[in-house]
Amino acid sequence: MILGKVIGNVVSTIKLSVYQGYKILIIQPVNNKEEPQGESFLALDTVQAGVGDTVLVIDEGNSSRLIMNNSTAPVRTVIVGIVDTIE
Amino acid sequence: MILGKVIGNVVSTIKLSVYQGYKILIIQPVNNKEEPQGESFLALDTVQAGVGDTVLVIDEGNSSRLIMNNSTAPVRTVIVGIVDTIE
Amino acid sequence: MILGKVIGNVVSTIKLSVYQGYKILIIQPVNNKEEPQGESFLALDTVQAGVGDTVLVIDEGNSSRLIMNNSTAPVRTVIVGIVDTIE
Amino acid sequence: MILGKVIGNVVSTIKLSVYQGYKILIIQPVNNKEEPQGESFLALDTVQAGVGDTVLVIDEGNSSRLIMNNSTAPVRTVIVGIVDTIE
Amino acid sequence: MILGKVIGNVVSTIKLSVYQGYKILIIQPVNNKEEPQGESFLALDTVQAGVGDTVLVIDEGNSSRLIMNNSTAPVRTVIVGIVDTIE
Repeated sequence: MILGKVIGNVVSTIKLSVYQGYKILIIQPVNNKEEPQGESFLALDTVQAGVGDTVLVIDEGNSSRLIMNNSTAPVRTVIVGIVDTIE
Repeated sequence: MILGKVIGNVVSTIKLSVYQGYKILIIQPVNNKEEPQGESFLALDTVQAGVGDTVLVIDEGNSSRLIMNNSTAPVRTVIVGIVDTIE
Repeated sequence: MILGKVIGNVVSTIKLSVYQGYKILIIQPVNNKEEPQGESFLALDTVQAGVGDTVLVIDEGNSSRLIMNNSTAPVRTVIVGIVDTIE
Repeated sequence: MILGKVIGNVVSTIKLSVYQGYKILIIQPVNNKEEPQGESFLALDTVQAGVGDTVLVIDEGNSSRLIMNNSTAPVRTVIVGIVDTIE
Repeated sequence: MILGKVIGNVVSTIKLSVYQGYKILIIQPVNNKEEPQGESFLALDTVQAGVGDTVLVIDEGNSSRLIMNNSTAPVRTVIVGIVDTIE
C-alpha cells in the first residue's frame, strides 16, 4: 500500500462500464510527513475521498478486484481508506 | 492506472498474431498538469487514440487481457480511455 | 523482498475488515548499511514490529495472502521478519 | 511493453533447463528517439535479436509464459519483436 | 530478470519456515559493465552464491515459486544463476 494525497480527478468520455459510478482520482504519493515523493498516478475511489484528502491506496490487481467485489474488473489501483493520523 | 500522452507509434515486422489490428503506441506519463514525468513505455491501443491525445492507460496483465477479451493474450499494457478534462 | 526501517504508523477510520488487528506501518527502504534509499511505502505488520526496527518486507499479493493465511485478502505488502544482523 | 536496445548478452553456467536454447540479452530501455532511459535489465530472446537491435520487450510473467508456450516456465521478461521504425 | 552483485546477507530470527535452509542475500543491481544501478533488494539464494558473485535474479512470485518447487511459498525474488561472462 501507498500513502497518497488526492490532487485532482479525471473525466473521460471513453470509460469502461465497470468504472461507471466511480471517480478516477489523481494521487500524489507522499512520505510520512505528507511531503510529495515520486510520480502521480490514477486510482478508482471506493471510499468517497476528495481533493486534499490523504488516503491509503492499494496497487495490485487481485486486491483491487477483491475490494470491488468483481473478479473480472480490469482495475489495478483503488483507494481503500482515508487517513486520520500519521504517527 | 496512469495518465499519459501519446507521443509516437512503433512498427515491427515481427509481431505476435494477437497484436494484429492494434497499434502499438509510445506513451509518455504525465502529471495532473499534463507535464511529462518518468519514462515512456508502450501500450496497445484499444480506443483509437492518436499522437497528442491524453489517455488513461492500465498496466496490469490480467486487466489488459480482460479488456481485450482474450484470456491468453500476452499483453500487459493497454490504453483504456481518452481524457476529456483534468480537474 | 526489501530491507526497510519502520518509521511510523498510520491510523485510518475507513479500514477493510481484513486489516482489523494489524498495524499499518510506514516503511523506509534501506540499503545494506541501513541508509535510506528510495521512497517509503506502507506494509501490514505480521510480526509485532515497532518504530525503529529494521525489517524484511515482502511486496507481492500472493505471498502476502499466503502469509496472512487468507486467500482473498486484498493485501500486497507485509512485514515478514525483524532483522538481527546484516553482514 | 517497453522499447529497448540490445547491449550485450550474459553467459551463465548455472542455468535453468527451461532457458536452454535461449540467449539471455541485456536490454537498455530507450525513449521514442532511441535515447537511453532508466536501468538495464535481462530478457530471454525469442526472436533472434542481436546486439544493436531495437526491440519490443514484454515484462510480465504470464505473458512471457504464453509466448514461450510453457505454462510453468519461471520467466518474466522476453523479447517479442524487432522494431522497424518509430514514428 | 536482473543482473546483480551479492553485497551481503541478512540474519533474521523471525523467519518463515519455507525460508529455512536458504540464505537471504542483499543484491545490488548492476549494468552491463557491472557498475551499480538502482537500489538494492533481497533475494533467496537457490544456487549457493556468495558475496562478490555476479548473479541472475528473477523477480516474480510465480517464477520464484516454480524454481523453489513450492506452489505456496511466499517468495517473490530468487537467485537463479551465477554469471560467467558478460559480452
